[in-house]
Amino acid sequence: MASRFPASLRQEVYLANLRLVEAGLVIGTWGNASGYDADSGLVAIKPSGIPYGDLRPEHLVVVDLDGTVAEGELRPSSDLATHLELYRRFPGLGGVAHTHSTAATAFAQARRPLPCLGTTHADHFRGTVPVTRELHPEETASDYELNTGRVIVATFAHLEPLQIPAVLVAQHGPFTWGHSPLAASENSVVLEAVAQMALHTYALAADAKPAPDHLVDRHFLRKHGPGAYYGQR
Amino acid sequence: MASRFPASLRQEVYLANLRLVEAGLVIGTWGNASGYDADSGLVAIKPSGIPYGDLRPEHLVVVDLDGTVAEGELRPSSDLATHLELYRRFPGLGGVAHTHSTAATAFAQARRPLPCLGTTHADHFRGTVPVTRELHPEETASDYELNTGRVIVATFAHLEPLQIPAVLVAQHGPFTWGHSPLAASENSVVLEAVAQMALHTYALAADAKPAPDHLVDRHFLRKHGPGAYYGQR
Amino acid sequence: MASRFPASLRQEVYLANLRLVEAGLVIGTWGNASGYDADSGLVAIKPSGIPYGDLRPEHLVVVDLDGTVAEGELRPSSDLATHLELYRRFPGLGGVAHTHSTAATAFAQARRPLPCLGTTHADHFRGTVPVTRELHPEETASDYELNTGRVIVATFAHLEPLQIPAVLVAQHGPFTWGHSPLAASENSVVLEAVAQMALHTYALAADAKPAPDHLVDRHFLRKHGPGAYYGQR
Amino acid sequence: MASRFPASLRQEVYLANLRLVEAGLVIGTWGNASGYDADSGLVAIKPSGIPYGDLRPEHLVVVDLDGTVAEGELRPSSDLATHLELYRRFPGLGGVAHTHSTAATAFAQARRPLPCLGTTHADHFRGTVPVTRELHPEETASDYELNTGRVIVATFAHLEPLQIPAVLVAQHGPFTWGHSPLAASENSVVLEAVAQMALHTYALAADAKPAPDHLVDRHFLRKHGPGAYYGQR
Repeated sequence: MASRFPASLRQEVYLANLRLVEAGLVIGTWGNASGYDADSGLVAIKPSGIPYGDLRPEHLVVVDLDGTVAEGELRPSSDLATHLELYRRFPGLGGVAHTHSTAATAFAQARRPLPCLGTTHADHFRGTVPVTRELHPEETASDYELNTGRVIVATFAHLEPLQIPAVLVAQHGPFTWGHSPLAASENSVVLEAVAQMALHTYALAADAKPAPDHLVDRHFLRKHGPGAYYGQR
Repeated sequence: MASRFPASLRQEVYLANLRLVEAGLVIGTWGNASGYDADSGLVAIKPSGIPYGDLRPEHLVVVDLDGTVAEGELRPSSDLATHLELYRRFPGLGGVAHTHSTAATAFAQARRPLPCLGTTHADHFRGTVPVTRELHPEETASDYELNTGRVIVATFAHLEPLQIPAVLVAQHGPFTWGHSPLAASENSVVLEAVAQMALHTYALAADAKPAPDHLVDRHFLRKHGPGAYYGQR
Repeated sequence: MASRFPASLRQEVYLANLRLVEAGLVIGTWGNASGYDADSGLVAIKPSGIPYGDLRPEHLVVVDLDGTVAEGELRPSSDLATHLELYRRFPGLGGVAHTHSTAATAFAQARRPLPCLGTTHADHFRGTVPVTRELHPEETASDYELNTGRVIVATFAHLEPLQIPAVLVAQHGPFTWGHSPLAASENSVVLEAVAQMALHTYALAADAKPAPDHLVDRHFLRKHGPGAYYGQR
Repeated sequence: MASRFPASLRQEVYLANLRLVEAGLVIGTWGNASGYDADSGLVAIKPSGIPYGDLRPEHLVVVDLDGTVAEGELRPSSDLATHLELYRRFPGLGGVAHTHSTAATAFAQARRPLPCLGTTHADHFRGTVPVTRELHPEETASDYELNTGRVIVATFAHLEPLQIPAVLVAQHGPFTWGHSPLAASENSVVLEAVAQMALHTYALAADAKPAPDHLVDRHFLRKHGPGAYYGQR
């Protein structure tokens, strides 16, 4: 039986997972990336606990937005319910990625948001990357991964997810997303880079101020939206 | 004469040693990993001062729990007596690893325990990784390596070694262990990663608090024990 | 039609771009290097948003000093106007490079100049690498990249660009230059290295003093100028 | 004409230079290693400013202890006079190495000695690695590299060079040495590693205390001297 999940998107989800390894963001089987196909309403995600070196596109687990497995023999990533909540609540998402990359996780553990300290950040995230509140004991006791998704969504009550496609889950680590699976992974790569820069910036100037709005907007809009002039037509 | 030490476990001890190199935890001939076979009561360990690039499975030295060499032409690792004390006193151990990895060694040199600051830590260590007391002059003067093992064991008087499979030996560095040689090495890899994260976390928040028990338990038990649901069945 | 831009210099601009990747200074499509040919008055620069792995010498865009495209089908780097302003105003420049390398960008984000703390710095930069003032809102609103070049030039009103071939653009990142494209890239590599050293130096001694002039001059002049005795004749 | 410098030692000097690259201690043409042959009284050293990728054993420059070139067409390293002073004044030296490795150079720039904070350090350096005094203007004005050697020698007036085979030259960087060229390079590698550990240790405990003498001696003597029991017989 032919897969209902597009083969080219499945390949991109596979590459988005490998991109996390290539960029040095994951150790062992940590991390995961998924992709959403709006036409079929299906999500493909990394199976749980599979070494990246063994991963093949056909290993990806395909589920619907309620988490019912449509295709695949393996268990999906244990973080699946977090991904699904983001697809359900953030319109326009094509991919989600999750890592425990070192510097971004340090911000999450310190429960400090990551302000936009310069143009590297502004090129990808239009403002502060927020940190979620902590989960309550009853939220970890049951539906833990779903509740993780819910606190992320609550954190974005007054933010635009596709303009700030990243979050720091308190005492856990980063989730990122984007229009596509590769965009989601690339945002994980950039988030780690800007978190490293921010660590060093604060070491040099504990009271470093965010870049002004006019500079942030200039850089974000140079790369994103109708007036973008970065890259090729 | 056939080896009394199982060939497959010997191969795993060999790979556990190489894993330390691959993960960038050792320089030159530093570090060592061993494995214990409960059926024969024998331990296989890296020979002392052999470059990893020259190491072959047949170079491993096989000893009994008293340190009597059963097989092998080479001298065992100078840290052998520490490994043996851990196998004798911590029931259920299948592997031990030792490195001087940078961030974990910094905690050992600073004589600071490594609290569980987030889920990356909680996935592998159910609580604070402790630091030993210093050795007394008479403990370094004779049976130094055995005494190193003894202070590790004393440090775990009220801790469960297989739930917190790592220790920081004061002014020395980390030892880790696990159900198998590869689990021991992997715990060395993870310990270094969480030590790096903790260094950055404390730089951002000098008073960062450990993750709450409900979150630590959720993550540890998601991966370990009868209710684990991470990975494949 | 034969190119008016020398083939050997085009090749060097290509290699200068790849040097930024090789040294780990760029992620994705970030960064760019260019070269100037005084005879033809033309500049060759990396096209915008092209992955380095796909880049070929023939992809470089050739423009005159006013930015009019002379050769090439692709859009030039979005930072072109900054490069051109430097070529127009700093006599003797043969190459310009721009990265968002981690430590140098941290100094730019912290708006701290990078003093000459030792001989590694003095071998390449004869004194403090300055940081620009911030751009005003109207300077980002239009001709943003040109205005970036202008604040760099203003920062060097009383400095010699070829003796201190680097600048930190506030809340943005480093630009470097040199007699040739490869010299410009190499200065990006060295700037990142000395910024890393400075970060660590300040962590150890918050009030670390710059090296004295006699040592700075000795090292700079050992490598540069008529009395240089470093390297081969 | 056959070389008066032993071919096997020439090969080792070559490998000692490459070891600096392999360990990530040098950028571009930075750094240099040399070897001394007591029988002929000759020193072989890296030529100045030659990229490591192009270096061949036959490029090494052979000089006597006064610096007179005995063999080779190329200019010797500009740091030659420092190496020679160490060979002349420290009996038993077989090799010298010099790098600008990041963490060790940070200590040199901060003018802070590197105390023995743990066993990693004690395995190679029996106590604090000292930092030299600054050079006076007249010492940089002429015979700069020789004077660098002289302040190193003065720093060791009451220290044993082969028990602490490393120094931090103020505002410059580390020099290391040993019984052989490869031992000298390996000491550069270890010095950088323990400097990194010390940076992190001080970040965690600004008042971290050195390891006690009994532990330092145990580790140093476990690896060095007549009672050593590390490695193979």
